[in-house]
Parts: sequence; structure tokens; C-alpha cells
Amino acid sequence: MTDYIDLAGTPQTFGDTEAQREVRENDRNYVFHSWSAQGAINPLPIAKGEGATFWDYDGNEYLDFSSQLVNLNLGHQHPKLIKAIQEQAGRLATIQPALANDARGELAKRIVEHSFEGARSVFFTNGGADAVEYAVRMARHHTGRQKVLSRFRSYHGSTGTAITLTGEPRRWSNGTLDAGVVHFTGPYAYRSAFYATSPEEEAERALAHLEQTIQLEGPETIAAIILETVTGTNGVLVPPPGYLPGVRALCDKYGIVYIADEVMVGFGRTGEWFAYQGFDVKPDLVTFAKGVNSGYVPLGGVVISEEIHNTFVDRSFPGGLTYSGHPLACASGVATFDIFEEEGILERVRDLGERVIEPRLRQLAEKHKSVGEVRGKGFFWALELVVDRETREPLVPFNASGEAAAPFNAVVAACKQAGLWPFAAGNRLQVAPPLVTSEEDLVRGLDIIDAALDVADSYYTGK
Amino acid sequence: MTDYIDLAGTPQTFGDTEAQREVRENDRNYVFHSWSAQGAINPLPIAKGEGATFWDYDGNEYLDFSSQLVNLNLGHQHPKLIKAIQEQAGRLATIQPALANDARGELAKRIVEHSFEGARSVFFTNGGADAVEYAVRMARHHTGRQKVLSRFRSYHGSTGTAITLTGEPRRWSNGTLDAGVVHFTGPYAYRSAFYATSPEEEAERALAHLEQTIQLEGPETIAAIILETVTGTNGVLVPPPGYLPGVRALCDKYGIVYIADEVMVGFGRTGEWFAYQGFDVKPDLVTFAKGVNSGYVPLGGVVISEEIHNTFVDRSFPGGLTYSGHPLACASGVATFDIFEEEGILERVRDLGERVIEPRLRQLAEKHKSVGEVRGKGFFWALELVVDRETREPLVPFNASGEAAAPFNAVVAACKQAGLWPFAAGNRLQVAPPLVTSEEDLVRGLDIIDAALDVADSYYTGK
Repeated sequence: MTDYIDLAGTPQTFGDTEAQREVRENDRNYVFHSWSAQGAINPLPIAKGEGATFWDYDGNEYLDFSSQLVNLNLGHQHPKLIKAIQEQAGRLATIQPALANDARGELAKRIVEHSFEGARSVFFTNGGADAVEYAVRMARHHTGRQKVLSRFRSYHGSTGTAITLTGEPRRWSNGTLDAGVVHFTGPYAYRSAFYATSPEEEAERALAHLEQTIQLEGPETIAAIILETVTGTNGVLVPPPGYLPGVRALCDKYGIVYIADEVMVGFGRTGEWFAYQGFDVKPDLVTFAKGVNSGYVPLGGVVISEEIHNTFVDRSFPGGLTYSGHPLACASGVATFDIFEEEGILERVRDLGERVIEPRLRQLAEKHKSVGEVRGKGFFWALELVVDRETREPLVPFNASGEAAAPFNAVVAACKQAGLWPFAAGNRLQVAPPLVTSEEDLVRGLDIIDAALDVADSYYTGK
Repeated sequence: MTDYIDLAGTPQTFGDTEAQREVRENDRNYVFHSWSAQGAINPLPIAKGEGATFWDYDGNEYLDFSSQLVNLNLGHQHPKLIKAIQEQAGRLATIQPALANDARGELAKRIVEHSFEGARSVFFTNGGADAVEYAVRMARHHTGRQKVLSRFRSYHGSTGTAITLTGEPRRWSNGTLDAGVVHFTGPYAYRSAFYATSPEEEAERALAHLEQTIQLEGPETIAAIILETVTGTNGVLVPPPGYLPGVRALCDKYGIVYIADEVMVGFGRTGEWFAYQGFDVKPDLVTFAKGVNSGYVPLGGVVISEEIHNTFVDRSFPGGLTYSGHPLACASGVATFDIFEEEGILERVRDLGERVIEPRLRQLAEKHKSVGEVRGKGFFWALELVVDRETREPLVPFNASGEAAAPFNAVVAACKQAGLWPFAAGNRLQVAPPLVTSEEDLVRGLDIIDAALDVADSYYTGK
């Protein structure tokens, strides 16, 4: 029986200790890993993936509630996406950006047609971080201003400008690589910085704070405001009603470019093509990556408004990269649009999100004291875990590691042991399954979370 | 008869005006291009590529002496590289960096085994620019110092730190995005800044200048020196004998990290796996991209010395990306190593470089007064065009555009008209064909350059 295919193309069965040993050994001997102390990790070798599931070499099965790094929107090995890659590889794997290519033009067209009114063109990059770098560059050249505002509790990527824009601990030890970045406090009703008592009040006060920040930094020095439409790794922070339109109004008032960072939430995660479409707001620039082709081939980009595009009609845009508009990547993006339409992905995200995920998560919050808040949209949710509902003290402290993080790690371990790979961040179990996950698997995954929350409850100290 | 396959997978013949129109229209309507005023370009739609040749929709054939952007080392559509991509797509297109993957581990192993003695691991990125960003980050954290030195006449990529390191006009309008960058003058014997009269003297004086720069900037503030081993787009500047070992010695003397930027010259371009292997020098970090898989799937990375790797054994490396060690990209990298060995790529680059390219270019320099200097190695050469051999005044001024660039543009146009796509930069016709180009095609391409140089000669004003 064939369980998986090895690197040599040979069918194999699970339980091959030697194969597993070799993968692990090469990894530990030669691969330098992201965001890690290399001596403290022991990455699990993965033999196979299919849909919402992946398997290690022993045949242990994991239901992926994290969509890998929230990129695998169409799940592992979607046959049509694989076919598109194989066919494009057979036609023309690559061509330089200065020439014109059918797959590149077709994907740019599809993206623009599914974007905001007034969207004009797409600049393709290799991923989300460089999409952010180039969006900021466009805003700076368009406005002639240097500063960019981003919020605390945000992630925008790890290259120079992107990591400086990032508003969480991954930025800290990198210093200020881009001196033009200013951080402000965004809305987060559950832990309001503004003493708000309702989402509407949180939006209003967060906007007042943002306008003060703009005024105190100097409006004529600010090129752009960048916001994840729904904050991702930092908490699935859904913007309260009115907040994003309010940001738009401030941008209009002060001549500031609005950059929507949709790297994590674009392409169906929240039940819309782009998440901003569900929040009554029209950005000037939109960064994307991940879901555009489920990460099957590295790809990112920036959707550009007519107005900003026009800045670079007679004047050269000072940026570029060898793989901009890579045909293999773009072909898988085109197939993504086809699959979304053929399989009604947006409709199923809305349906299953509302009918299966949200009600069950709300029920878990009733059942488990350790769940302080449930929030989210579509296939993107967070359970904020606390030890006391009244004080809202988190299950583990902000940026906890080692012993301090042990209670949360125990919850995560319970999920993994039961065959669920969660999206774990801070004190939050986040739920971000592939958008093709079956209803049955969603229920099964939520059952596993239900059981793991017993572990979280055991640390509860409140009433 | 089938000339090419269209995006829908349908066989087509050249001369389909409608197909061509559609590709061009989508491109102009929706694609934002690198390094361009969007209104000033009209990118040529390409229908097909094979080996060292590509075709437009009318069936016009171009012999690619630029390897696209000096990435297509194994030429278009190498069957084994295509097969590796198609097979890996069928096995497992992607998996997140925190898990272990066979293709990723195998490629890291091959790269380390073909690198300098003491190389320990590989951090994979999406391309060359982010490889540079992360190499610099490693050097800064390893040394605890902030400054990075790079040379004028260099290109290191276009993201924040990379574009600031870049020592040519593409940096100018981007300002100083990384305040830690310092530029120095490197060796360039043909236009010596040091009044040197021999390559040896150029090396010696350039090293003295570099050491003065280190002393005046403060050795204890300098994390790294980054150098393209052979400067690429900025002139195929081959380091004079002793220069790179001298840089190594200065790095050792002052505790500075030596970063070899091999994005353009790695993987066989100069006849070695890595170009530094031909210059008697051992770097601490090596950036690569392009040739690692001929750009068939976006991929780059950093080769890391044992010493720097060890800095991050107990301490977390503060950087990462979703597609680090992307399986599809890595599988094509593994296949690249196999193909290089099976087809004796390094041997043929050395043989044809020495036997066919170099002698013919030297002969062209004798025949055409407009050729001021010929320099290069392997499959990487430059003809520096001048209007006067004595004054060495270039055919067009530095950073010329519009009317001022017309003489050089006429030479390039003559090449293209004759079916050769040259690597044109500044006042230089550069020669960088795919490493699989047949001897016959090399000769044919050099014949075309020979004829185009008549155009250059027509602008000659010297004796």
C-alpha cells in the first residue's frame, strides 16, 4: 500500500523509521529555522498532506486548524491547483518581469476585477513582507512624505521596513530598521486602552487617539497608515463597527495613503475575496500573499489604486525584483480564482463559519470558564484564554516563554496529542482551518478543542 | 503544428494576433512593472522558451545572452528541472518552515556540502534581496554591531536594507532606509580611483582604502562587509588578484563578518559552484538565489558558517518567513545539483568560457575600437564600450537616459534585431548566456555582437 511518495519518487508506507531519521537528521544538520534558537527545536518530519490533514512518517494524522501559517486556504494538494502548477511548469516555468506573460496578466486582471472600485494594477512580489515593503515605498513616493503609522499588536513581515512596522515582540530585538515608523494603539475592546464599554465606543475613542497621533506627528509628514484588516497572529482582532471607515476618513482628511494588509486575511479567510470588503472601507493599496495561491508557489503583491498608479506613469517606480510576476506562481493564482468560483468557497466559508464554527465556539465559551472572549469571522477565530474572567488576566503573561508559558503549552499539547494542529499565539487558541475543511472535520476539530479547554480550565483561578 | 501551449492548455501556432493582443492588453491594463515609468514601457509578450532561446507570439526567436535576469543558468524548460517541479507538486507542494521536509533538508545538505569548509547550515528565503536582509541581520546579531559596509558600483536587491547597500543609481531616490550602511570604493582597474597602473596595485590600494574606511568608521561599530564576488549588473568587475583574500584578512583583523553576495554569480556562472571558490577566499555568510534553481520557483537563501550558526543555538534568531525552505522550490534546487553533475555544467562553463567566449571577445576588442575593455570569467563577461580608448570616455555617460543614452540603445537594438537578447547595462554589453548554451549558439551570438559593435564604432571619436 502506498502511504506517501518519497523524494526519489518511490511509493512508501508509513512507519519507515530510516526515512524519518534521514529527514530529521538533514533538517537538524543543515537547515537553519525561522524565529528559533536552533538548539531548542526538533521539527516534526511530515510525509504527506491532503486537504485539511497532514501526516508524519509514523502515519500520525493532524487536522490542520492553522492552515500551515494561515496560507493553505485550499488545503493540501488541491488537485486543480497541482494541475495548474504542473501544466504551467510544462509550458513556461519562468520569464523575466520586463517581458509580458499570459499567466501574469491574467492573474493581475482577476485580482483587480475582484478588488475595490478604482483599483488599477498589481505589483507582484515573492511574499507578504516584500509586498509591505513595496506598498510603503509607493506611498512614500506618491505623497513625498516619509512616516508610516502602524498599530501595536500587529505583524507585517520580517524584512527591514516590515519588521519595524510590526507591533509585537518579534520586532523588539531588531531595533528600528526604518526610522520613519510610528506605532499607535488600535481598537481591542476586550482589553480596551480607552476605557471603552462598547465596541462602538472603542471605535470612536481609538479613532480620536489616531487623529491625535496624526496631529502630534504632523499630518504633512505621514505617508501612510497600514492596518491588517483583521489583525491576525496578534489576536484575530476584528475591527469594531465604524473603525475602518473612520480610518479612511482620517486618511482622506490628511492626504494619507490607506494600506490594507491582507496577507493573512485576503482570499476568503473571512468570507470575502478581501476582508476589507466586509468592513465598508476602500483602501488605496492592498498587500496580499498566502491565500492568493495557498502558498503552493511563493507569491505576494500589492493592489494599486488608479491615483497611486498614475504617480508612476511618467515617473519611474524605484523598485523591483527578479521574480516579480513569476509565471508558475501566477498560474496557481489564476487557478485559485477558478477553484473559488467552481467550489463556492466564499459561500461555504460564510455558511460554515456562521452555522458551525461560531455557534460552537460560543458554546465552548459558556462551557469553559477559561475562555474569556470569542471573536472572529468566517474561518478566522480566536479563543482568548484567561485565568479569571473578571480581571481578564490572561492564561499566560504577554510574550511568555519557558516555564511561564507552560499552562498554554499544555493546552496546545492536548490539541496535538488528539490530532489537531492549532494556530496557537500568546494566550489564544486561534482557529484558521483550510477553507475546504469538511463540516465533519470542523466538528471533529472543535470537539478536540473542547476537550483541550479542560486543561485550560484547570488553571482557572477566578470565580 | 504546435508552436506553443496557451494558458488554457491549448496548442497554438505562432502569428496569432488576437492571442498576442490579449497578453499585451492584460499586461498594460493590469500589471505594474519593476523599475519603470508605467507609461513608457511596452513589454514584449513571450509565447515560449526552450534552452537558450525564447520566442514572441509572431515566432521571432531570441537567443538569450542575459539568462533572463542572469538567473536562467540551466536555460528555459530544462526537462529534468520541469520534471522535478511536477513531481514535487504531486507529492507535497508546500509545508510550513517549522516542520521538517525531505526536499528542504536535502537541498540544504547539498548546498552546505558544496560550500566553504566550516559552512554549517542554510537559511532559505524567497529571493536574493531577502537573503541579503537576513544575512545582514545575522551579522548584526552575531557581532552586536550595526554598520555594514558595501561598495559603490554594486547591486544587492531592492528591499529596505538591500537597496541601501546597493551602490548605484537604483538606490538614489529611495533615500537611506537603513541608517547603518556605509559605502566605500572597490577595485575597478579600468577606471581606477586609486591611480593604480596594474591589477595588483589596484588590489593593494583598494585594500588600503578599505582599511582606512574601517578605521575611520570605527572597527568596533562594523558588523559586516558585503561584496558581490564578481560585481554583476554594475560591470562584471572581476576582483583583482589578492583583493578578496585581503578583505578576508581585514575582516579577521577587525572581527567583521564577510558576506559574499553570490545571488548572481553562484551556481556555475563563473565555472565554480560558488564564485568565491575561484578567488581563494572563505566567507562567513553567502547569499544566493537565481542559479540555485534557475529561478523556476522563487528561492534564495544564506549559507551560514559554524561560528555564526552557533550564535543562534541557544538564542533565538529574530527573523522568518512563511515560505522559508519551500518544498517546491527546494525540490528544483536538488534537481539543479543532479543536472550540474550529470551534464558536467561546471566543466563546460570553464571549457567554453576559455575556448570560445574569451578568445572571441578579445578578438572583438582588437577589431572594434569602441571596445575599451573585455573582462569576465566563465559565462560572465563585459565589453566596456567607449568613444575614446585613450581617455576611456564611455559610449554614454554614467546613468544616462533618454537622448543621452541613444548611442548605447542603438547597439542594443542592433543585437535584438538580429535575434540576440543581450545583458545591457550602462555603457556595457554584458554576456551571460545560460550555462547550457550550445557552442554553436555561443558563436552565433558572438557573431551578432560583432556586427552590433559596428554601430558602437560609428560613435567613436578617438584616434
